[in-house]
Amino acid sequence: MNNKLLVLGTIAYDGIETPLGSRDKILGGCASYIGLSASLFNNYCGIISIIGSDFEKEDFKIIKDKGLDCSGIEIVQNSKTFYWRCKYDDNLNSRTTLETQLNVLEKFKPRVPDHLKDSDTLVLGNIDPNIQFDVLNQMSSRPKIIILDTMNFWIERFEKQLFELIKKTDVISINDDEARQITNEYSLVKAAKKISKLGPKFIIIKKGDHGVMLFHEEKIFSIPAIPIEEVNDPTGAGDSFIGAVAGYLSQVKTLSFSVLKSAMAFGVVVASFAVQKFGPEHLINLTHEELSIRMNELKNLSEFELKLNF
Amino acid sequence: MNNKLLVLGTIAYDGIETPLGSRDKILGGCASYIGLSASLFNNYCGIISIIGSDFEKEDFKIIKDKGLDCSGIEIVQNSKTFYWRCKYDDNLNSRTTLETQLNVLEKFKPRVPDHLKDSDTLVLGNIDPNIQFDVLNQMSSRPKIIILDTMNFWIERFEKQLFELIKKTDVISINDDEARQITNEYSLVKAAKKISKLGPKFIIIKKGDHGVMLFHEEKIFSIPAIPIEEVNDPTGAGDSFIGAVAGYLSQVKTLSFSVLKSAMAFGVVVASFAVQKFGPEHLINLTHEELSIRMNELKNLSEFELKLNF
Repeated sequence: MNNKLLVLGTIAYDGIETPLGSRDKILGGCASYIGLSASLFNNYCGIISIIGSDFEKEDFKIIKDKGLDCSGIEIVQNSKTFYWRCKYDDNLNSRTTLETQLNVLEKFKPRVPDHLKDSDTLVLGNIDPNIQFDVLNQMSSRPKIIILDTMNFWIERFEKQLFELIKKTDVISINDDEARQITNEYSLVKAAKKISKLGPKFIIIKKGDHGVMLFHEEKIFSIPAIPIEEVNDPTGAGDSFIGAVAGYLSQVKTLSFSVLKSAMAFGVVVASFAVQKFGPEHLINLTHEELSIRMNELKNLSEFELKLNF
Repeated sequence: MNNKLLVLGTIAYDGIETPLGSRDKILGGCASYIGLSASLFNNYCGIISIIGSDFEKEDFKIIKDKGLDCSGIEIVQNSKTFYWRCKYDDNLNSRTTLETQLNVLEKFKPRVPDHLKDSDTLVLGNIDPNIQFDVLNQMSSRPKIIILDTMNFWIERFEKQLFELIKKTDVISINDDEARQITNEYSLVKAAKKISKLGPKFIIIKKGDHGVMLFHEEKIFSIPAIPIEEVNDPTGAGDSFIGAVAGYLSQVKTLSFSVLKSAMAFGVVVASFAVQKFGPEHLINLTHEELSIRMNELKNLSEFELKLNF
């Protein structure tokens, strides 16, 4: 298969408390969510990450069973997997990190296996920009599509490196607060214009349960999120979103406003499944039929009859 | 003409400070915004309100020139028009009321002129629920369409009356925070379900610059707001929205999910014009051509190609 997709990111054990329940040491990390979502599409997807020797066989099986290439996942003996624990507020609107054990992440030197160096699509998941750069530099040639996800934590610490990286990126995915933080503009239209001047041709701004926006040249696309009656766990929503976007793009292998719109629709739909259960539980068992039904729902959600009679 | 629409609400003088400028004693109040927006459609629109003898001839002319029937606007001699002054924060995201002079509003006893009592469509704009009830009771028969707008201020003070009123309403329009406050539910899907149990068949939830949602039976409609690069003054956005919704409905004179969706699309578009200039300035000069162009933009904003190839 030629649709080769490479995902860089963390594999973690998460501890999650939400008003509807709690879980501890469940599979998490952006590479897990991105990989599982991307695997819903027709591609060959490799993961670059690191785990400890405590990583359970069953969890490895989940990833492998989805056809994900794990040869780029380093296993460090006598070490522990990155662990992160958080508690969401009553509205699932904000969360507090209760514990972060970097463990194996502290000395992560990514190594891209030779057979993955020519991947067409590269997703630089939310991780230290220096590590993102390292992986990009290991590619044998510039991937056709480079997708970058990041967050305020990295913006605050490595702004210079991050800006260098953004310059090389085709598609950047950040949330609304971060877009405002980077640009000092409250208006998302103005913020996106400033970010596009840094390099990327496609700027995706995530607005949580308010949906997502895409800015490309003078064009704007905006779709609401799928209304979910009961959100169990918002963890990984953004990563599932970008995983599906990347998965779709890796199939199509071209970038255009129209292609990005369809990709983002898949992203919104996959993310809506992700938040309905704890961790990546729903992603693991998601079927193409479920996906198709909800894609149609999304299509109908914003449709109205244009009747210009006054 | 048979498309008779009656609007109850305040006419005010507003003092507005935003990061992009300030104005004082400009035409405001929900009835002004609702009436001006509704007048964009094919109907006969009367206003029920009250003003003081300080109300300027030019401002009266603005309202009259739009064809609005002012016979239900009481003018109190030697009294002053309701005055409200506010300051928006840097993000235009929240505002602080700096001054409220109720003036003529304090003794407002609405009187519906006989020729307006048979209006097909009634908009109970954001005002004391007791006054809203008073106007509803003066109608010669139940209007075909009753639209209710309200806010947290009234929910906190007159919850009982408001709930009685909601029971008699076809379409309720409130913002997301208020929907949550009334129902004690964070999920808007759950909140809308609870509100629908109070009576209204159509529940509109306004989410500011994130757009609007409609809930009807098991169906949901959700559209983003039009992305505006430079918002000058968000005052009256919600009122302009509901004014356009009412104006459209007064033409169609039937209620269905499909009709409401088109109505709300007009609402979103008219509100997007309203916020681009201070006060109702933009609404006054808005043309059907501008409206049509932006309606098409809104239609395109969320459209994507549904390609279910995996």
